[in-house]
Amino acid sequence: MARIIQCVPNFSEGRNKDLIEKILDEIRMVDEVKLLDYSMDKDHNRTVVTFIGEPEKVILAAFKACKLASELIDMREHTGEHPRMGATDVIPLIPISDVTMEECVLLSEELGKRIGEELDIPVYLYEKSARLLDRENLADIRRGQYEGMAEKLKEENWRPDFGPNELNVRSGVTAVGARMPLVAFNVNLGTDNIDIAKKIAKSIRASGGGFKYCKALGIEIKERNIVQVTMNMIDYTKTPLFRVFDVIEREAKRYGVNVVGSEIIGLLPMGAMLAVADYYLRLENFNHDQILEARMME
Amino acid sequence: MARIIQCVPNFSEGRNKDLIEKILDEIRMVDEVKLLDYSMDKDHNRTVVTFIGEPEKVILAAFKACKLASELIDMREHTGEHPRMGATDVIPLIPISDVTMEECVLLSEELGKRIGEELDIPVYLYEKSARLLDRENLADIRRGQYEGMAEKLKEENWRPDFGPNELNVRSGVTAVGARMPLVAFNVNLGTDNIDIAKKIAKSIRASGGGFKYCKALGIEIKERNIVQVTMNMIDYTKTPLFRVFDVIEREAKRYGVNVVGSEIIGLLPMGAMLAVADYYLRLENFNHDQILEARMME
Repeated sequence: MARIIQCVPNFSEGRNKDLIEKILDEIRMVDEVKLLDYSMDKDHNRTVVTFIGEPEKVILAAFKACKLASELIDMREHTGEHPRMGATDVIPLIPISDVTMEECVLLSEELGKRIGEELDIPVYLYEKSARLLDRENLADIRRGQYEGMAEKLKEENWRPDFGPNELNVRSGVTAVGARMPLVAFNVNLGTDNIDIAKKIAKSIRASGGGFKYCKALGIEIKERNIVQVTMNMIDYTKTPLFRVFDVIEREAKRYGVNVVGSEIIGLLPMGAMLAVADYYLRLENFNHDQILEARMME
Repeated sequence: MARIIQCVPNFSEGRNKDLIEKILDEIRMVDEVKLLDYSMDKDHNRTVVTFIGEPEKVILAAFKACKLASELIDMREHTGEHPRMGATDVIPLIPISDVTMEECVLLSEELGKRIGEELDIPVYLYEKSARLLDRENLADIRRGQYEGMAEKLKEENWRPDFGPNELNVRSGVTAVGARMPLVAFNVNLGTDNIDIAKKIAKSIRASGGGFKYCKALGIEIKERNIVQVTMNMIDYTKTPLFRVFDVIEREAKRYGVNVVGSEIIGLLPMGAMLAVADYYLRLENFNHDQILEARMME
């Protein structure tokens, strides 16, 4: 299997297309890295970029993009609806294929250190990379936003993990961290009774006592006159799609309702789907290297 | 999705490692082509090579390997147990990802024409590439073997599709053709009653009135004290794994027997497994481009 990670940096500029194109070019120019997508939001004045590739090349591309963003974006002039604290606001690193979370954490430390030392930007490690409990949640780190960061950095328990102890007034502060990929998975039920979707969503989500790595809501799909359990699977390796699907189906039957379909929104790792096939076919000893396309990428 | 085909040429030399290494090097030297496997058989005096890659690059690698084989292997000296008719005996081209069978047929014609014209070797198109009904089956083409080819080529209905109408005494005759990948799929049953495996195998295989693209036998797995339905799925796009699996499970239940596991032997295209996940999750509008690794290969 090829070693692949994904990187989804958020930049605090969503209106100037030429500027964003220059940042994207920094990523495009790195070999063995593939720019998959970017979306500029004018109201948020923020751009989310998605790219994947060989781990060391991905963090090189992330560093180069962050460096150019620090030159081109001035946080003193930034306004927008989305909470933000830096020109490069956050850089998540996500294991996709043949890379462990532990390796992603090490990569995030390498990247954070380089941003801190070479670009003189305070860096917080978050999520799986967090070294302190109150840095796991990005919202906690970002609280106060750019305008509050000069004060926040002076607090004992908000010293950055890398870089200077004071604000870089031009570039702000950047969070870097490893996290699992999100899989957006929705299951459609053959009823217009929203209560059933809500009850099932509650029973399967972690906060209701359900699966630890599943967030779920019950919603209406009015144009089809049906309801849906809409989910974010936040660790498909530990809470796999098939297990949640089976429970939804069983719970729905308890109300005399059928699952009429499901959908996956956006991108997901091959492993998430292979695990489904593996489960339902009851495969013994199936190895992802048996997939021809995986061998092509080695 | 990346465009990928597989090529599995068979060479009439299975004892001389140095010679085979030279042929493999011709394949290894072509960019965007990946040598996956080769197996030399001394008794058959034959080597089967597996490689994949970008379609035009794969047929270039196949041509180069065939050319060197025609220089290094002399069929007048070849002995071995496996039926054979040429130094490069057969070159199957197999669609794996984002390539149609029709495109593979065109590629086989391009490759066959080049082998015929540039190497002066008679070439028969077989399987999906066959232009005459009695050339679909490779065994029919190869009947008479190398020793009988000089006569066979003189027959009106055995004129080659490309190359000279007479035998290349040194290199023999080569068959080139497009075919689907085989998926070797076995389902284990929780019983030692071989009759049940045999009855189920008969009911699902084409020859017994079952699925058109499924070959199946019932066998014993003595070391586990169970029986197995062992299958060759010869077109997983038309007879998918999940459909055959479901029928086996239902038929087994009719005898009070459970499916205890299954296995896939060797390599298979990602699409064969995605179809399984798609089916059991009842996905609506799932596209293989949603797989991150597939996007990496574009």
